[in-house]
Amino acid sequence: MSTTVSFTKGQGTGNDFVLVPDPDGALDLSADQVAALCDRRFGIGGDGMLRVVRSAATPAGADAVAAGAEWFMDYRNADGSISEMCGNGIRVFLHYLLQTGLAQLGAEDAVLIGTRNGPLRLTRSELGYEVDLGPFRIEDDEVLVRARGLEVARPGLGVDVGNPHVVVALSSEAELEGLDLTAIPILDPVPAAGANVEFVVPSDPLVADGVGRLRMRVFERGVGETLSCGTGVSAAALAVREWAGASAPDRWIVDVPGGTLGVRMIGDHVLLSGPAALVYSGSIVLA
Amino acid sequence: MSTTVSFTKGQGTGNDFVLVPDPDGALDLSADQVAALCDRRFGIGGDGMLRVVRSAATPAGADAVAAGAEWFMDYRNADGSISEMCGNGIRVFLHYLLQTGLAQLGAEDAVLIGTRNGPLRLTRSELGYEVDLGPFRIEDDEVLVRARGLEVARPGLGVDVGNPHVVVALSSEAELEGLDLTAIPILDPVPAAGANVEFVVPSDPLVADGVGRLRMRVFERGVGETLSCGTGVSAAALAVREWAGASAPDRWIVDVPGGTLGVRMIGDHVLLSGPAALVYSGSIVLA
Repeated sequence: MSTTVSFTKGQGTGNDFVLVPDPDGALDLSADQVAALCDRRFGIGGDGMLRVVRSAATPAGADAVAAGAEWFMDYRNADGSISEMCGNGIRVFLHYLLQTGLAQLGAEDAVLIGTRNGPLRLTRSELGYEVDLGPFRIEDDEVLVRARGLEVARPGLGVDVGNPHVVVALSSEAELEGLDLTAIPILDPVPAAGANVEFVVPSDPLVADGVGRLRMRVFERGVGETLSCGTGVSAAALAVREWAGASAPDRWIVDVPGGTLGVRMIGDHVLLSGPAALVYSGSIVLA
Repeated sequence: MSTTVSFTKGQGTGNDFVLVPDPDGALDLSADQVAALCDRRFGIGGDGMLRVVRSAATPAGADAVAAGAEWFMDYRNADGSISEMCGNGIRVFLHYLLQTGLAQLGAEDAVLIGTRNGPLRLTRSELGYEVDLGPFRIEDDEVLVRARGLEVARPGLGVDVGNPHVVVALSSEAELEGLDLTAIPILDPVPAAGANVEFVVPSDPLVADGVGRLRMRVFERGVGETLSCGTGVSAAALAVREWAGASAPDRWIVDVPGGTLGVRMIGDHVLLSGPAALVYSGSIVLA
């Protein structure tokens, strides 16, 4: 039986999503149907799907209901598998709620959105919206990273921001541009769950007006190079702050191929900010 | 000033297009606007844009008007540049005309569609639609082709089907799958206008029931590996027929990553057939 699905396409720093409104949890999309929606040539195309559902209308939303989060972000990867969170996706999700009148958010207010990583707090910010990603952790053990375009293996720092990352510092923008990320970087030792790998170049000077700045490219596990990765940007800023020592700032700007994001550290929490846009709406018939 | 553009997304064997109806030639899209439409993350996404315009409503349509072709396919590459023709695109274009009632086509009829390569004749066919691509030419000089994943350079055959191709025969499906087409194949000598490069593996047996069959991957100049290339499929079948000698058939089936296409040779003309589908419709605001 075919189903007609209404959707809106959205993106944040080039991370793009198919938003599917389903306030009452009436849609039952299979993994194959989600993969069909996210297929860039045979479907709509996106890095993932964001189903917009009331927390009370989905079994996964119990914690969100308890926390007072009206809406739940049901995030699926482009292959249809379930995923916990997406740092860029949640801004696009909030923007959709606000643009369609499903939620309101004053300049000084905050809104909670339910995710499989628990309810997350969002506010408006200079770059667009800011989300508190929760606690982060710097790993103790060094990882060696080999990548096509780098002559020798480089040490990487493990950073966990809900998902695992390895951050590698490069010496120049030329070296960053010369990286060939069509090939998967090799990690030694291989982390149990794999890791996204971020290659970063600090700006010169590193800090201006109390804000650090760096440039980054990312290889996402299971995906390849992407234009942006919200948690990766957060991990990159955390790693560079770690390397820079005690005097390093708690505010960072990170330039990725898809745009510019902001990172703040407050205690053991990391917060990510950036833009979000809705691109177009339509409807599609799914087999 | 922003413009709202209605569109339909369509594809043929995974070659995908943004169709923009503009019957009266009222739209004046800049190259930047076309590129924005075709951007897969910040726009709709597609291998190209097909503007659907009456031949009488566009200066490029004079030949089409003279030939009696009511509709003109204004094809643009994804970067916004003008292109002559697209073997997969023209089937999607015709399918759009038929689905929207802008044209009719009986089972035994033919329709002419204007292109910058002149008006082309299309009919219904077993695989969907068939287009007469016009005369082809086999080149005399051999070209050596080097590609990542091939240990030694291989001879390639130049074939012109309105645009230039070099076809290389591989020895096995394993060799075809082992090719790394993230790197551009190197041609020696370099053709003046560049060329698309097709790597083919004949099936075993090559011919069954009077129809030849082969598998193909393609690297399109200026683009990279694609799921399908209509003129490339035609060139591949022509090259294999040339190699197979006088007893080779005039009907071929070519399997590409995006699906299956048919090729026929009638005299010095080559005809390409395959499926076409419309995926969804919507509207987008262009800056």
